[in-house]
Order: sequence, then C-alpha cells, then structure tokens
Amino acid sequence: MSSSEIEQAIALLSKLPTLGPRSARRAILFLLTKKQTHFAPLIEALKNVHDNIKTCPECGNMDTSVPCAVCSDVLRQKSLVCVVQDVADLWALERAGAFKGVYHVLGGVLSALDGIGPDELEIDSLVRKVETGAVSEVILALPATVEGQTTAHYISDRLADSGVKISALSRGVPVGGELDYLDDGTLQMAFKARREV
Amino acid sequence: MSSSEIEQAIALLSKLPTLGPRSARRAILFLLTKKQTHFAPLIEALKNVHDNIKTCPECGNMDTSVPCAVCSDVLRQKSLVCVVQDVADLWALERAGAFKGVYHVLGGVLSALDGIGPDELEIDSLVRKVETGAVSEVILALPATVEGQTTAHYISDRLADSGVKISALSRGVPVGGELDYLDDGTLQMAFKARREV
Repeated sequence: MSSSEIEQAIALLSKLPTLGPRSARRAILFLLTKKQTHFAPLIEALKNVHDNIKTCPECGNMDTSVPCAVCSDVLRQKSLVCVVQDVADLWALERAGAFKGVYHVLGGVLSALDGIGPDELEIDSLVRKVETGAVSEVILALPATVEGQTTAHYISDRLADSGVKISALSRGVPVGGELDYLDDGTLQMAFKARREV
Repeated sequence: MSSSEIEQAIALLSKLPTLGPRSARRAILFLLTKKQTHFAPLIEALKNVHDNIKTCPECGNMDTSVPCAVCSDVLRQKSLVCVVQDVADLWALERAGAFKGVYHVLGGVLSALDGIGPDELEIDSLVRKVETGAVSEVILALPATVEGQTTAHYISDRLADSGVKISALSRGVPVGGELDYLDDGTLQMAFKARREV
C-alpha cells in the first residue's frame, strides 16, 4: 500500500508512451532511492522544458527560441522545405545531419480511421508558404505507410499548380540491411528503383 | 537538433529503469503536446512525491507519514515481521493483501558479485528488533534466487539463538501456472513439498 501521492505520480507516469503501471512504479522507487542525484535534477529539467519550450510558428519545431534554432540559422537554405509528420521525425533527420534546409511539421498524416483530414494538418500553411514564391523545392519526408503515402499524394496534388519542384525520400535497402530479413515490398521497390553502378 | 533543455531532460529520463533514450524522447514529445492536461500535473505530482515521501525509521517503507501507514496501523500484528528485499516487494505483498503484520525492508540481498555484504543491509537492525522480545515470528519473503536464499540462510543463522519462529514463503506451482511452461526446479520443489488433499 503506497500513499496517494505516490499513486498519483505512478498513474501519470504510466500514461507516457512505452511505460505501464509496473515500470512507472519501478521508476518512482528508483527516483526515491536517488533523491539528490536524480530525482531533484529530473524535476528541475522537466520544469525547464515545460516552462521554456515553445512551438516555432514558422515550421512547427519545438525549441527554447522563437523562431527555432533551425529557422533562425542563417546558413540554412530557406528555399528547401522538408515536410515531416511530427517533431520526432524532424529531430531524427537533424540527428542524421542529412539536410541543410528548413522544415514544415504537418502534425500527423491523413487517416480516415482516426478521422484526420487535411484541415487537422498544417497543409494550408504549407501551400501558402509555397505560394509566396520563396520555396524552390518541397521534400516529402513522410513515413512509407499507406497513410504517409496518401498524405504525400494529397500534398503533391495541392502543390501541382504552383510549379514548385516536389521530391520524396528514396526507398530501398537500408544501410546494413540483410536482404533475407527485408519485406517483399521493400525488395520489389529496391529492384524497380535499381540504378547503374 | 533539439535544445539543451530537452536533451538534459531526455538524458535524465532515459536513466530510469525500463526507459532508454528513444522512449525518453517519445515521452518528452508526448508531454510537450499535452502541456496542460499532463505535463504540469506530472511535474506537480513528482514534486509532491519528492518533497513529502520519507523512509519509515521502523520498517524502511516509504510513505508520507512517519512512521508509515503500515507501522502506525493499530490493527496490524506487530509481533509478525515479514522480511522483504525492497519497498517494491513490500508494496506487492500489500497489494495482494495477504499479510496483516508489519515489515522489515532489508534494502537488497547479499551478493558477492555486487559487493553487498551483511553490513550493507538492514540485518543488524532486524536482529536488534527480534532481541527486544516483541517479535513472535519472522517471515522471510525473499526472492527465490541464489542471492535471496543465501540471504535467507544468513538471517536464519543470525536469529537461531533468539528462539524466534522463522518461516519462509511456500514454493510451488503459481496460480494459473501450466506445468508444461514451468522450470524443472519449480516442478521438483512442488513434488517434494506436495501435500494431501
């Protein structure tokens, strides 16, 4: 029997993705045994994030500065806009360091099942951004799922008249990927998109 | 590229048991999208736990009150002492509601590999508690591992002269357990400890 304070913290923690009641309880007990070295710093760090992190009005990234560090970086090419599903994907691309333009976070992908239509996503703002004429290429870095590809098609249609160049991430065998373990769809796609060496 | 505030929170979160860097990042993004309904209450709940939860000087349980709710409950039999490895096990037994005595938290089990000897555990305090004469039975609810059983043996030896009754949790087939899926040790133990029906 633990106190109501602990139960409430466990209930809130267990709603985080990848955590359940059992792991939340273990986390709280771990923190209670490391009050000075871990618990106090974690509360402080979470409070810092809560108080200081804002959504960038230009791209939808989350950062302490407004506009975010990416949008305010003068070395990045503002005419290249990479469209991503969410902030997690933006951070993944930034960690890879593969892209030196700016981003546009959609806030999800079209999904009839979840009732997410074009109005729920930041698609109109993307079209307006392109219509200003400041964008030379839109790179669709959307997930290779049915919903992701539906969204990519919809955005391509909406931008068709603007004359902007539209591209998408290549598909194929991932680095380090054993052919034996890859799904049929990836192998077929890798064959179709094969290139001379 | 996320800001240093976010990176620090992720670094601290990812040290919690069952969490890693990826799930910590997902947790932070989840919290940032639910600032009012989830993030602020979670920080508040963690702060409450941090500020108000103390270790009970009598049994080692963690609670807002000192002594803890178990030790200060007049309906519980103070002469029955259940020895547990840690607070997580104490809470598990309390959730099961199987025991109406009080507890004694060791703070771990003996482990030569991890360098945990008797002095690192609350064993002396248990012996002193028994020597007061107020204890009629010590129930060893320690894990059924080599370390747990070594610890149980050691405690039995230390308490042998006191004349107190010493017992341990029974071993056998768990409720709902399919024999086919049980390990050999459990099945052998269940046979040896079989009883007439």
